[in-house]
Amino acid sequence: MTRPTLPGWTHAPSATIGQVGEHALIRWIAERIGSPASPDVLLGIGDDAAVVRPRRNHVDVLTTDVLVDGVHFRRDFSSAADIGHRALHVNLSDVAAMGAEPRVALLSLGLPASLEAVWVAELVDALATAAAAARVDLVGGNISRSPTLFVDVTVSGAVKPRHLLRRSGARPGDELYVSGAVGAAAAGLAWLQTHDTSDLAIPDAMAQGVARYRRPEARVALGLQIGRNKAASACMDTSDGLADALRQLAAASGVGVRIDRHMLPIAGAVADAAALAGLNRDALVWSGGEDYELLFAVPRRARRRFAHASGRTGLPPVTRVGVCTKDSALLVVDEDGTESALPGGFEHFSGSDASDVATTPVLSGEPA
Amino acid sequence: MTRPTLPGWTHAPSATIGQVGEHALIRWIAERIGSPASPDVLLGIGDDAAVVRPRRNHVDVLTTDVLVDGVHFRRDFSSAADIGHRALHVNLSDVAAMGAEPRVALLSLGLPASLEAVWVAELVDALATAAAAARVDLVGGNISRSPTLFVDVTVSGAVKPRHLLRRSGARPGDELYVSGAVGAAAAGLAWLQTHDTSDLAIPDAMAQGVARYRRPEARVALGLQIGRNKAASACMDTSDGLADALRQLAAASGVGVRIDRHMLPIAGAVADAAALAGLNRDALVWSGGEDYELLFAVPRRARRRFAHASGRTGLPPVTRVGVCTKDSALLVVDEDGTESALPGGFEHFSGSDASDVATTPVLSGEPA
Repeated sequence: MTRPTLPGWTHAPSATIGQVGEHALIRWIAERIGSPASPDVLLGIGDDAAVVRPRRNHVDVLTTDVLVDGVHFRRDFSSAADIGHRALHVNLSDVAAMGAEPRVALLSLGLPASLEAVWVAELVDALATAAAAARVDLVGGNISRSPTLFVDVTVSGAVKPRHLLRRSGARPGDELYVSGAVGAAAAGLAWLQTHDTSDLAIPDAMAQGVARYRRPEARVALGLQIGRNKAASACMDTSDGLADALRQLAAASGVGVRIDRHMLPIAGAVADAAALAGLNRDALVWSGGEDYELLFAVPRRARRRFAHASGRTGLPPVTRVGVCTKDSALLVVDEDGTESALPGGFEHFSGSDASDVATTPVLSGEPA
Repeated sequence: MTRPTLPGWTHAPSATIGQVGEHALIRWIAERIGSPASPDVLLGIGDDAAVVRPRRNHVDVLTTDVLVDGVHFRRDFSSAADIGHRALHVNLSDVAAMGAEPRVALLSLGLPASLEAVWVAELVDALATAAAAARVDLVGGNISRSPTLFVDVTVSGAVKPRHLLRRSGARPGDELYVSGAVGAAAAGLAWLQTHDTSDLAIPDAMAQGVARYRRPEARVALGLQIGRNKAASACMDTSDGLADALRQLAAASGVGVRIDRHMLPIAGAVADAAALAGLNRDALVWSGGEDYELLFAVPRRARRRFAHASGRTGLPPVTRVGVCTKDSALLVVDEDGTESALPGGFEHFSGSDASDVATTPVLSGEPA
């Protein structure tokens, strides 16, 4: 793989973080980032803290999520640029799930001294590119030595209080929708985990899943539209899998759910991964996670607004997958009417947003 | 050491993080934290992101800093509670250096599965205690598995724009002040590094330094007073040592400095550590770091306001250590008038706030 050209990067390709040093790396990052794009950023990188003017009549939305080497990513599955993009988007997804607009990000890097410095520069470059595309200013952070590589990002966003999307507002009768397709990223990850990628091209059938795993795209525009149009009573992202999201939204709202199995927008890569890697299709769909789609509850009175908001050009498709119920049971209904319990989430002991690339139960297909 | 009693902690003392699991740990944290104290926290722990109402006529101040096991702390030097306290205060110090009031914190924990879960609970308990004491609400974060233990905290604070303290406002003639005493924490750390603490009581002479290293107290009240009274033209914290702080404040402001060596408020522990452990006294004073004191530049016109603001009850002492100069040289002046160059900072490749407990140049006394 040829290295992309990094503007202003003058260190030898083989130079390590220990050789380049923290100060030179921070200087390069500060130059790469340049001046903040938003006039609301009064102080960016370079002082004790960043200073940001709040948006008028909005509230701040704050989230932090970390990617840890060997836990949330593997350097042989993802490029430095993939990981930088991903580190931002897992946070943007949380902001999107609140109906908020992301504004600024902080980056906390833990770096082994032996790591190639240009690898880190590529990660930061991609994170900066993703931030610029999302109109987010990288305003600060810190760099630390660490035996384990980690990338911890904090994002602050803004939303008008009346447009805020919580998890807890769903009521019996509200219809449940999910954006995009489920299982693609998990299928892509599963394929990477079961194949030697060093000498094997990714088959066309898996390309979508692998790309979705490597570069998730947070549904920021969709979350904003849904929030601004008051089109949903509850929302959260599916970072820990669809089953987990349904369980959490139902618990927070005090409702049950009935999900129509045949309505689920299952990514094509799921069937391919199941065939190519002998994986449990249901586990990929329900517990795979990594998709960063949005799960919404839409009240009857808001259906027209929802159709209007979610039908705008450039937004991902949304699919009705079921309904919230007064009864607290969490059910999946087959086309023939057979009911079964919603598959369990799994206790993976990782962040709230990430499955474990080394030991994720997806691979064994075990529910927990 | 007897374990403190943790309210609501029902797991066996020997249970590991892997055994207790992420969900149970998060549930315990959410119960330990309880409802947010501030009515401005609209959503705390439990949704995709936290939601905080900005303070009217204030701007947001954002900072993040991480403590990594073996880099910023050692578990045989500090208790879990020490590390929890410290993880918050290194961030509070950055907020204090802006003249801002800290409001909310996010906590990102990276935890080895083999770690004792009660150790983590003690860390979180102490962080929560420190947060409550500082009127800071812990509003969210995440927990992830990680081969290396790390504690990454983000703090958001608020300040009126006209009370903001930057690094860049110092002008020639402004007098330089430092709070508290320098070198105490570095001396305490150096003593811990050179003694077997398992079978040796800490001598009285070192107790202050060790305590200061283990539990730094960010100078929040002082920073607020200085900011509100417009008593300083520039400010930063001394987390990377006094020499580094002087160098950075001077560079950001475009001034030089003349520091009176005999005026430096050197902690008593420094001389003791030098004697007890055969350490380089100057290295502890100039490059030790860990003190989290504030360095201020006070313009002539603000002297009275500064004396008023810094003289309030309950604030740490402040000491005039030198003056900003038009000439860009960074000089230290002895009592007999001999000038020498400000000792160099060291490139320790760690965060902007922390020296390396394993290899810090303090131990060898090497300038870089």
